[in-house]
Amino acid sequence: MPNNVEEFDAYRKRMNDKILATDNKVIKRIFNLDTNAYKEGHLPVKTKELLGLVASTVLRCDDCIKYHLETCFKEGVSKDEVMETLSIATLVGGTIVIPHLRRAYEFWEELETKN
Amino acid sequence: MPNNVEEFDAYRKRMNDKILATDNKVIKRIFNLDTNAYKEGHLPVKTKELLGLVASTVLRCDDCIKYHLETCFKEGVSKDEVMETLSIATLVGGTIVIPHLRRAYEFWEELETKN
Amino acid sequence: MPNNVEEFDAYRKRMNDKILATDNKVIKRIFNLDTNAYKEGHLPVKTKELLGLVASTVLRCDDCIKYHLETCFKEGVSKDEVMETLSIATLVGGTIVIPHLRRAYEFWEELETKN
Amino acid sequence: MPNNVEEFDAYRKRMNDKILATDNKVIKRIFNLDTNAYKEGHLPVKTKELLGLVASTVLRCDDCIKYHLETCFKEGVSKDEVMETLSIATLVGGTIVIPHLRRAYEFWEELETKN
Amino acid sequence: MPNNVEEFDAYRKRMNDKILATDNKVIKRIFNLDTNAYKEGHLPVKTKELLGLVASTVLRCDDCIKYHLETCFKEGVSKDEVMETLSIATLVGGTIVIPHLRRAYEFWEELETKN
Amino acid sequence: MPNNVEEFDAYRKRMNDKILATDNKVIKRIFNLDTNAYKEGHLPVKTKELLGLVASTVLRCDDCIKYHLETCFKEGVSKDEVMETLSIATLVGGTIVIPHLRRAYEFWEELETKN
Repeated sequence: MPNNVEEFDAYRKRMNDKILATDNKVIKRIFNLDTNAYKEGHLPVKTKELLGLVASTVLRCDDCIKYHLETCFKEGVSKDEVMETLSIATLVGGTIVIPHLRRAYEFWEELETKN
Repeated sequence: MPNNVEEFDAYRKRMNDKILATDNKVIKRIFNLDTNAYKEGHLPVKTKELLGLVASTVLRCDDCIKYHLETCFKEGVSKDEVMETLSIATLVGGTIVIPHLRRAYEFWEELETKN
Repeated sequence: MPNNVEEFDAYRKRMNDKILATDNKVIKRIFNLDTNAYKEGHLPVKTKELLGLVASTVLRCDDCIKYHLETCFKEGVSKDEVMETLSIATLVGGTIVIPHLRRAYEFWEELETKN
Repeated sequence: MPNNVEEFDAYRKRMNDKILATDNKVIKRIFNLDTNAYKEGHLPVKTKELLGLVASTVLRCDDCIKYHLETCFKEGVSKDEVMETLSIATLVGGTIVIPHLRRAYEFWEELETKN
Repeated sequence: MPNNVEEFDAYRKRMNDKILATDNKVIKRIFNLDTNAYKEGHLPVKTKELLGLVASTVLRCDDCIKYHLETCFKEGVSKDEVMETLSIATLVGGTIVIPHLRRAYEFWEELETKN
Repeated sequence: MPNNVEEFDAYRKRMNDKILATDNKVIKRIFNLDTNAYKEGHLPVKTKELLGLVASTVLRCDDCIKYHLETCFKEGVSKDEVMETLSIATLVGGTIVIPHLRRAYEFWEELETKN
């Protein structure tokens, strides 16, 4: 099995660099906001990452889910906390979320294996 | 201005009672799960309510937003924490979330006025 | 309480007439298709109306739900069959469907009261 | 009939002012971007407004549709051009867009009546 | 060409087993409901599967579409009935459904070839 | 790297032919409308293609994005115009659009390389 975590990170970085190089101001500012919004504020980083994870999951964006799972992992979120977050996403978003839940679980396993 | 909080709660309760009285098992279990999922678990109630709020907001469900705002208010979530949660929802979900942000803000004001 | 069924039908007809009068060919053909697609084919009309109802419900379009509820009512679909269809929609689409379920139930009651 | 255009504008302005007063940086920057993105660039303002209109319509956001219809009207977009844009939105987004098409048409009529 | 039907089923089963093993009660109950909701009730199994298929298609969930196509196939639904269901989904959900229609058609062919 | 443009076009054509051969009238008419809607009308072809691109992007349909990028390329739309259109899509649709932006950018590069 290929190491999906590294492939995912590399593709993400390579394309982000290319997109930012086009110098479109609106896109640059959105990318910039995307970094700032998850920094410590009135809510701690960990809670914000769980908010990003649940939003990505109900909107069924696999790459967004992977990104937030990776950050959650770095922030020390436990597997139980991730599953509880994903359970709320599946309840709110319905059974169409389940295929994304499978891929999210698989990616979390790869994060655990890799580290 | 009518007291929207009370109207909202009353309509919600009246219709839920009627729907549950039809005795459809799948719907009854979903309603039941909806109560259980937000109880204290690996994550505290307050975090779970913020997860419910952000999920409702990116999916642009005004009634769901109101419900979670009301519960957040009861749980002692601060206005700054609510705004930070809604800011992540607006970033992830885009500017189409803004009309819902306006109505969410208005409902939060009514919760503050009423209490 | 105003008779929402009649108001809904009147507004729908008035605006459809105006939109069709603009003579936009793409829109006219979509409106035309919308009538033809639910006619008896390999599947009976009743099944097709339930398909239209479940699609409208998971996509959370209140006016589309009302339209299909009205046609279901005319086709003799029972309340139990409607509730079963809506239960599948709520399971597939998640708890964000519930506010639409409330309004759907209310509209069905008005259809029963009116007839 | 109440003048919906003025009511819509007033509510929008009143709530935006309140939201911006909370001083949430992420939200402020998104509001700021929302103004800048539609300014003349490689594409003319009129084309950008039509892009905003079609995006709002397929995402079925009535308030966003109204906002872009109002700006289109100010920019001198013709009714035929608006209908053509909305026809593409209805084709891409499907018949669930039709209820929003009705409300869009009604709002455009009010813009014409008012001016 | 790999036998996608078998691969799909195997991945689905393997990940479902892992997810259920985490013992998250909310997820377990949703999985359980997902089995029960499509059982014979006021509506026959075949109709319920078509409801699941149309809901999955308008929500553009390829894996959900495949799952319901497979069950439809087992229940003896004809290709004409499947196409009629998918045509309603494409009309209601718009041309963005078409890429999913292509993959659905391809999967149905594989189901026919395999059996 | 495989030439994704040609693979994409070939798969699209092969499956469209098969789907049209099933002789489902509703689907045939939608396919037909899909061709007609983007022809020169009150708006020029280029503007209509940008409308199709932004609609596809906010609805996060990768295949639809590719199709419109290909037509934009043939119509002589510049990379700056494409990026500006995609920037509006990312603002309106939110950061969940970003993974689609990456794949769109990659496909545009392949169109440039191939031609």
